[in-house]
Amino acid sequence: MFKRKYSVPGTAPATLGAPPPEARPPVFRITEYGEAGVNERTVESVADLPPTAADGKILWIEMNGLGDVAALKALGEKYDLHPLALEDVINVGQRPKLEPYGAHLFVIAQMIYHDRESCLCGEQVSIFIGHNILISIQEEDDEDVFTPVRERIRGGGGYIRKLGADYLAYALLDSIVDHCFPVLEKVGEALEEIEEDVLEKPGKNTVAQLHGLKRSLMQLRRFVWPERDVVSALLHSDSTIVQAETKVFLRDLYDHTVQIMDLIEAYRDVATGLVELYLSSVSLRTNEVMRVLTVMSSLFIPLTFIVGLYGMNFQNTTGDGSPAPTNMPELHWKYGYLGVIAVMAFISVCQIFFFKKKKWL
Amino acid sequence: MFKRKYSVPGTAPATLGAPPPEARPPVFRITEYGEAGVNERTVESVADLPPTAADGKILWIEMNGLGDVAALKALGEKYDLHPLALEDVINVGQRPKLEPYGAHLFVIAQMIYHDRESCLCGEQVSIFIGHNILISIQEEDDEDVFTPVRERIRGGGGYIRKLGADYLAYALLDSIVDHCFPVLEKVGEALEEIEEDVLEKPGKNTVAQLHGLKRSLMQLRRFVWPERDVVSALLHSDSTIVQAETKVFLRDLYDHTVQIMDLIEAYRDVATGLVELYLSSVSLRTNEVMRVLTVMSSLFIPLTFIVGLYGMNFQNTTGDGSPAPTNMPELHWKYGYLGVIAVMAFISVCQIFFFKKKKWL
Amino acid sequence: MFKRKYSVPGTAPATLGAPPPEARPPVFRITEYGEAGVNERTVESVADLPPTAADGKILWIEMNGLGDVAALKALGEKYDLHPLALEDVINVGQRPKLEPYGAHLFVIAQMIYHDRESCLCGEQVSIFIGHNILISIQEEDDEDVFTPVRERIRGGGGYIRKLGADYLAYALLDSIVDHCFPVLEKVGEALEEIEEDVLEKPGKNTVAQLHGLKRSLMQLRRFVWPERDVVSALLHSDSTIVQAETKVFLRDLYDHTVQIMDLIEAYRDVATGLVELYLSSVSLRTNEVMRVLTVMSSLFIPLTFIVGLYGMNFQNTTGDGSPAPTNMPELHWKYGYLGVIAVMAFISVCQIFFFKKKKWL
Amino acid sequence: MFKRKYSVPGTAPATLGAPPPEARPPVFRITEYGEAGVNERTVESVADLPPTAADGKILWIEMNGLGDVAALKALGEKYDLHPLALEDVINVGQRPKLEPYGAHLFVIAQMIYHDRESCLCGEQVSIFIGHNILISIQEEDDEDVFTPVRERIRGGGGYIRKLGADYLAYALLDSIVDHCFPVLEKVGEALEEIEEDVLEKPGKNTVAQLHGLKRSLMQLRRFVWPERDVVSALLHSDSTIVQAETKVFLRDLYDHTVQIMDLIEAYRDVATGLVELYLSSVSLRTNEVMRVLTVMSSLFIPLTFIVGLYGMNFQNTTGDGSPAPTNMPELHWKYGYLGVIAVMAFISVCQIFFFKKKKWL
Amino acid sequence: MFKRKYSVPGTAPATLGAPPPEARPPVFRITEYGEAGVNERTVESVADLPPTAADGKILWIEMNGLGDVAALKALGEKYDLHPLALEDVINVGQRPKLEPYGAHLFVIAQMIYHDRESCLCGEQVSIFIGHNILISIQEEDDEDVFTPVRERIRGGGGYIRKLGADYLAYALLDSIVDHCFPVLEKVGEALEEIEEDVLEKPGKNTVAQLHGLKRSLMQLRRFVWPERDVVSALLHSDSTIVQAETKVFLRDLYDHTVQIMDLIEAYRDVATGLVELYLSSVSLRTNEVMRVLTVMSSLFIPLTFIVGLYGMNFQNTTGDGSPAPTNMPELHWKYGYLGVIAVMAFISVCQIFFFKKKKWL
Repeated sequence: MFKRKYSVPGTAPATLGAPPPEARPPVFRITEYGEAGVNERTVESVADLPPTAADGKILWIEMNGLGDVAALKALGEKYDLHPLALEDVINVGQRPKLEPYGAHLFVIAQMIYHDRESCLCGEQVSIFIGHNILISIQEEDDEDVFTPVRERIRGGGGYIRKLGADYLAYALLDSIVDHCFPVLEKVGEALEEIEEDVLEKPGKNTVAQLHGLKRSLMQLRRFVWPERDVVSALLHSDSTIVQAETKVFLRDLYDHTVQIMDLIEAYRDVATGLVELYLSSVSLRTNEVMRVLTVMSSLFIPLTFIVGLYGMNFQNTTGDGSPAPTNMPELHWKYGYLGVIAVMAFISVCQIFFFKKKKWL
Repeated sequence: MFKRKYSVPGTAPATLGAPPPEARPPVFRITEYGEAGVNERTVESVADLPPTAADGKILWIEMNGLGDVAALKALGEKYDLHPLALEDVINVGQRPKLEPYGAHLFVIAQMIYHDRESCLCGEQVSIFIGHNILISIQEEDDEDVFTPVRERIRGGGGYIRKLGADYLAYALLDSIVDHCFPVLEKVGEALEEIEEDVLEKPGKNTVAQLHGLKRSLMQLRRFVWPERDVVSALLHSDSTIVQAETKVFLRDLYDHTVQIMDLIEAYRDVATGLVELYLSSVSLRTNEVMRVLTVMSSLFIPLTFIVGLYGMNFQNTTGDGSPAPTNMPELHWKYGYLGVIAVMAFISVCQIFFFKKKKWL
Repeated sequence: MFKRKYSVPGTAPATLGAPPPEARPPVFRITEYGEAGVNERTVESVADLPPTAADGKILWIEMNGLGDVAALKALGEKYDLHPLALEDVINVGQRPKLEPYGAHLFVIAQMIYHDRESCLCGEQVSIFIGHNILISIQEEDDEDVFTPVRERIRGGGGYIRKLGADYLAYALLDSIVDHCFPVLEKVGEALEEIEEDVLEKPGKNTVAQLHGLKRSLMQLRRFVWPERDVVSALLHSDSTIVQAETKVFLRDLYDHTVQIMDLIEAYRDVATGLVELYLSSVSLRTNEVMRVLTVMSSLFIPLTFIVGLYGMNFQNTTGDGSPAPTNMPELHWKYGYLGVIAVMAFISVCQIFFFKKKKWL
Repeated sequence: MFKRKYSVPGTAPATLGAPPPEARPPVFRITEYGEAGVNERTVESVADLPPTAADGKILWIEMNGLGDVAALKALGEKYDLHPLALEDVINVGQRPKLEPYGAHLFVIAQMIYHDRESCLCGEQVSIFIGHNILISIQEEDDEDVFTPVRERIRGGGGYIRKLGADYLAYALLDSIVDHCFPVLEKVGEALEEIEEDVLEKPGKNTVAQLHGLKRSLMQLRRFVWPERDVVSALLHSDSTIVQAETKVFLRDLYDHTVQIMDLIEAYRDVATGLVELYLSSVSLRTNEVMRVLTVMSSLFIPLTFIVGLYGMNFQNTTGDGSPAPTNMPELHWKYGYLGVIAVMAFISVCQIFFFKKKKWL
Repeated sequence: MFKRKYSVPGTAPATLGAPPPEARPPVFRITEYGEAGVNERTVESVADLPPTAADGKILWIEMNGLGDVAALKALGEKYDLHPLALEDVINVGQRPKLEPYGAHLFVIAQMIYHDRESCLCGEQVSIFIGHNILISIQEEDDEDVFTPVRERIRGGGGYIRKLGADYLAYALLDSIVDHCFPVLEKVGEALEEIEEDVLEKPGKNTVAQLHGLKRSLMQLRRFVWPERDVVSALLHSDSTIVQAETKVFLRDLYDHTVQIMDLIEAYRDVATGLVELYLSSVSLRTNEVMRVLTVMSSLFIPLTFIVGLYGMNFQNTTGDGSPAPTNMPELHWKYGYLGVIAVMAFISVCQIFFFKKKKWL
């Protein structure tokens, strides 16, 4: 879960190593748009990509799939992407960051989602932002997160066809960041369910689930925290790529990252409180169980001793037949049995009184 | 409790989504006042609202109820409110913040109160501050918190009719912030009650209540902390809307937020200390219960063994009638019974001595 | 303990509410002094107070007792004290702070002392510092803390009659701050006593005392931390009231607040360590008690079973008189009794060996 | 593990003390390279080292082994290395740091690796960076970490033969820093293994392993944290030694240190969570064990008492032969045995009902 | 341990109170040295001290012993030492600090050492640094720490006779700071010893020792942390007393304080980890003990009940002699005894199977 692909220590910087395991062959999508219209198509290889955007248009190139290192290298050469950035693209699991490289701003973000087994996954999205070009590289051709953005480009409403590549980058990041809200909502619901369990029936499962949720929150935090810094760096960037019109939206996006961090911290506090509650709940149950055991044992142990006492077989004659009147004469008393029952009742009453005083009953 | 309404990820910014569930239709109140007098009325729709304040007067428009998105949109267009701000108005549960949007300062605050079941609730209050206009938007037409301010405007004493819209904003925020004092007072009283329970009779209820209080404090903190930043940002704002005369009051308000934070932190520390105290109290009780059990068991277990021993039925003749003098001759000793009682008394005395030394008795 | 008086939410700022409960009627003391001499007297009402200091003299007005709101208001009008400051004077329990209001520096400090039941109390001291006038307002006419300062003024040695009202303010604050040293010394002694108890005889009382001390330290911290900021703010104040000659003394006072904070933190760490030590001590005792119980029970439970076994009444003839030789023939063996004792001894030796290996004995 | 060699307190600064225990005699390697080619050789003594790099070439001198203090002193004199730096070279176990001394930048780094027993070790690497000279000093002639760099120099690809001594320093540091990735990967795998154990079969071994991992992470953190500062200091150095071309690589290296810190923190959080999980797991198991004990004991203790009761030997005649009809008449009742069995069954059913209600069964 | 002498609250600043308890009469040592030679002597009173250093020489005056307040006052007057500084000299237990007072820099440091009972002690060293004069004041005439410095002055090697009073101050502080290394080494060894105990045989002693070590580390931290600030303040001082030549050494000293802090933090983390390990170790042992108890009890309790059952004395004739065949007919069955043994064996096997499944065996 906390893994990060890395090059072999000592390799030269900017060496493109093997692609991540299970990487797919890349698919290239081209979306060229302007105020007038949109032009979408899919191509097979880097060679078929247009080198620059048409006049007054924005060119968005998507490379979905990291299985072909040569294609990535070709892409880098065609658009003059910095080799160190490409190394980060292929070594997935990077911490989100913003790095200005020559003519581009290079952004790494992590898209967080629950997979089919409700495990939290992160998929690395790398974005190169140029003046009227944006290149986004994903691990898989998973349309979910960018589909609404593409729809907005097609629809043509709002600002997206009027502003530049920086606004497109904002829209993509906004879509990635806002994906944390449903993820967090699910975590919040799970926490509420667990809260009820903790007090009612704390079990092994409860604490394992709680542990899993804390782990998820930790991981969310690891990725969202630096994303906040990325947005802040874009907001305060002095690069000419980020234009003033976009900054009001970036400020709004920054506010979203702050709110997500705020929710994560709140949930972490709740989870920590639940672990504490769990421990005190178990501790209290142990105490209760102990009390019952102690009361039962203490009540009956002396009584069992007494009845055992009068179950002894001492004889009132010695081996040679002479009388041994001190050997358990009680057994022959007229009211011996009633007497011993009375004694036992008295002992029990005393003990119950003692336990009441101790508030164990 | 920690929920926040959000737009579907990927929707265009500034899209006004559905109103929050259970939102009511809006009520519009108009309060126009100046040094000379006050003019209050209620209107039905946005169209009936005056576009600007009369000369030398302050116009306060209240929109109470978020059930009508179209009305909100109309309000935004009429007074040139920024669409991103309106999105925050409708997505209730926002973190308090101050955002300058064009001609307005946009403030989000959260009003904290105990509802009828003594649960802590937050209601979002959004405020647009202009040069001589103030628009406040609440979730419900709940007059409680703003009634005293309205009374002060009607009464005409103090500064409220002499200063501008910024002072009105201060008065509203002050009323919201000061509402935390009675809330905290109630929490403090609950903590004091719990403290007595923890040492006397720690139970499942105690720890659940404590947990609930910690949660309340956490939530208060989440809302008051950013409110402090809002006040600070207003205080250091270079906007011409906030005038020098108001700043001394904002400084006082800032001081109130600091004191509330200070109380919250103090109560959090107290609550944490109580959890700790609870755990050590339960742990100590378990130890005490264990000690009683151990003393009782250890005292009687050997004795029970001994009486069991002499309850055995070994015969002093073998199956074929030959004598078996080694089979429990003690039973035929003259002082066998007294002897065994003496042995048991001796064992008990030794054990009591041992337990005294261990300080278990 | 953590209470703070507050105005009803929504009241206009600078409204003087009811005096604190149990407030006494005020007593006014006047001390006018200069290099030449000292003039002390007590007056009944605000009207009898001199409006300004005589030429070249310093006027120190003490108002001890908050029971008369009208007098406080009159004082404020006579000396032009800011209404917001007066509100803070009457709402006792404020966080220490320094606020410049017009011609005065307004300082709130909290005097900490142990009351007769060894509880920690705080008394609010409000000080207005002007150019050659100082007005101090206390809750009670409790001379303790300011008596040494008054003595120094009478005595005329040192710097106190040579420097201005700022030095007098320093002297008062120094007296308040240094009062924490004996308070802390008492806490330190209590901690040392508890430390011995924790290892020797951890009891309910120990942990309650520890909890009380932690609470005291928390409260001390709450008041001393902002007092440090007050002194620092005075030190770096650009007001002409604070003169260069006084700053070296303020620096020394600042150092005292740092040292008090340092001691408080050290004691807090010690107290936290003691709670930890207490828990592990109880935990270890429980383990020890358990071990004894387990050893005793495990040793005797199988033996008790065996003796019970031979206490059964199976008959070696069946109901119809035919022999049942398999019914407990051991009882008729010649060395049956010795044999069973040997078996029990063997079992016990095995168990003791096992317990030795486990290091439970 | 956390040791640091130090000079006797009070010795003059820059005194070269004894070499570290088990230090080996030094081996000197010389690698002189430029764009044209590479020249490698090994010499015996400091005297044989070239005093400066040939024109347009970079001279890399390696001194591997700290066993000969005189040689170190000679090296220092020959290349004008600062005596305080040499003291740090010999006192191994230093915190990583960057110190500008005259014409050199002096860097201390710690190489982290798992030794044969899977213990974490650190080896100090000291580097003096000059304008076209670099002197590296290691504790042992352990080629592992620098071999890939040497290979790159020989290979001549990439930037290494084109850029200066600062790039060589970067390459060495990069190799040292990236060595943490496999170390962390191993720690991560160990954590995953432990996680399974914690819930399934928490044992003494589990917690000891967890403790060992936490210790390893703590140590990694101790060395990587200051290494991050070293890289940052190099990056922002105003020394002419560090050239602009190298800075983009240093920024990448800085990013690696940040990512390593991030992983370390994540693993620390996981380890802390596992300790918590372990404790609650053990606590829950104890509770479960207790419940079984309590149920078993409580069920049978009253029954054992009852059967003991009817095992008493009270006689229905007194010592003098007169009848004692109140002595255990039940034994002679016709359905006495069935009755007592019925009573016991009823008691058991009641108890089972009670335990079900308590959810202990 | 955490005590600090203080003046009575309210006393005038710069009042020299009583000397610390057990203070000794002062001894004055004079060491005057320059490049040419050294002149050492001891005098009886302040009057015999030379007022200034001879030309081109450095005058080091040591006052060892605080028993004579008058002598301290005289010293202060003779060398124009600030009265507030003298108050700090006599109120031992001060936090280390640097304070510029007129012509002097006033430094307070705390020398840390283990006393004969291995307790950690601190001795306050006060140093006044002038242009070519240095006055050091210690609590006792304890030569240990300054002897190596004096030796270096006598020996004349290194820098000590070439540089000024600031270098002497550096040498003294260096000697004080480096004294922490052996202290920490001892703590580290103790931690290693405890670590073994914690897993093998956690006892009351273990946790008390651990608590003591944590306390020692806390105290070390309290004194070393501000000493780091003192060195940093000297390093960045703009006073002409601290010369550029000395700064490289101060930087080295600063590095030592950082390394000591680093070690202290590492040891604190280790100690915290050990407390955690201790608690989980005890918790696990309790669980293990419980398991044995539960298994033993659960195995034998039902068996003991059964044998008790057949130890009952129900008679197969009623009181009036009529048969009661339902009264324990099993006792007369032919294979009753073997049958009951078989039943018990079956029950035991079932239980063992259950315990195996639960992994308690």
